[in-house]
Amino acid sequence: MDQTNCVFCKIAAGQIPCYKIFENNAVLSFLDINPISDGHTIIIPKAHYESAELCPPEILAEAAKSFGAIAKAVTAAVGAPAFNLLCNNGSPAGQVVKHIHFHIIPRRENDNVFARWPKYTYPDGKAPELLKKILAHF
Amino acid sequence: MDQTNCVFCKIAAGQIPCYKIFENNAVLSFLDINPISDGHTIIIPKAHYESAELCPPEILAEAAKSFGAIAKAVTAAVGAPAFNLLCNNGSPAGQVVKHIHFHIIPRRENDNVFARWPKYTYPDGKAPELLKKILAHF
Repeated sequence: MDQTNCVFCKIAAGQIPCYKIFENNAVLSFLDINPISDGHTIIIPKAHYESAELCPPEILAEAAKSFGAIAKAVTAAVGAPAFNLLCNNGSPAGQVVKHIHFHIIPRRENDNVFARWPKYTYPDGKAPELLKKILAHF
Repeated sequence: MDQTNCVFCKIAAGQIPCYKIFENNAVLSFLDINPISDGHTIIIPKAHYESAELCPPEILAEAAKSFGAIAKAVTAAVGAPAFNLLCNNGSPAGQVVKHIHFHIIPRRENDNVFARWPKYTYPDGKAPELLKKILAHF
């Protein structure tokens, strides 16, 4: 599954060092060296899949099993009362390394890390129309 | 597990209607009625847990198994090339409904939905110090 030019595959293979937080057969977790808040942590399946759409459900499940314990340890270590769990899929969504990864981002009140939440309301009829389209793609 | 005043428990129990995208024994998915992009979708474990830290690993795993298929259908339906998968844990992280939920947010190039990624670099010695603290909390 290794991709020759994938930095996360190299970290998983031990070819590039990392500040390792957790590891089992399926999953590796380490500090993001370009954090957006102190303790910002990455969780990856060791196998190379580009995004959540392309990753087998069982592998996503293995990664998800680690979310709670890692988030608990990271937030306790930095004394943060909250965190975001984020997976960017595709460049327009902010994905840089093309090996699926989950960010754990410790958060504090008014830290302005992710202040933006530009919510709106659908015009009449739009939501059921979207639902029909989505269900047609299942 | 139902919480009397939890809107997502009420949706899971069928007491509040939703635009339902997917449902199985453990998981429910529906359109967010206050989207931040068209097709913005919510995925919840039906059982009430406040956050990823408090949710049993097996239940997180069940939710994660649905991520790929739902994201694929939603992005195909709205013609979006990318998406964020986001779980806000705690008010300072933007969590409003206190029942763990994952957002699937369709994204497009330069859509400015989440433009902010305020990354920085740790000063010398900070990363290993943080790692030590995190490992002490495992």
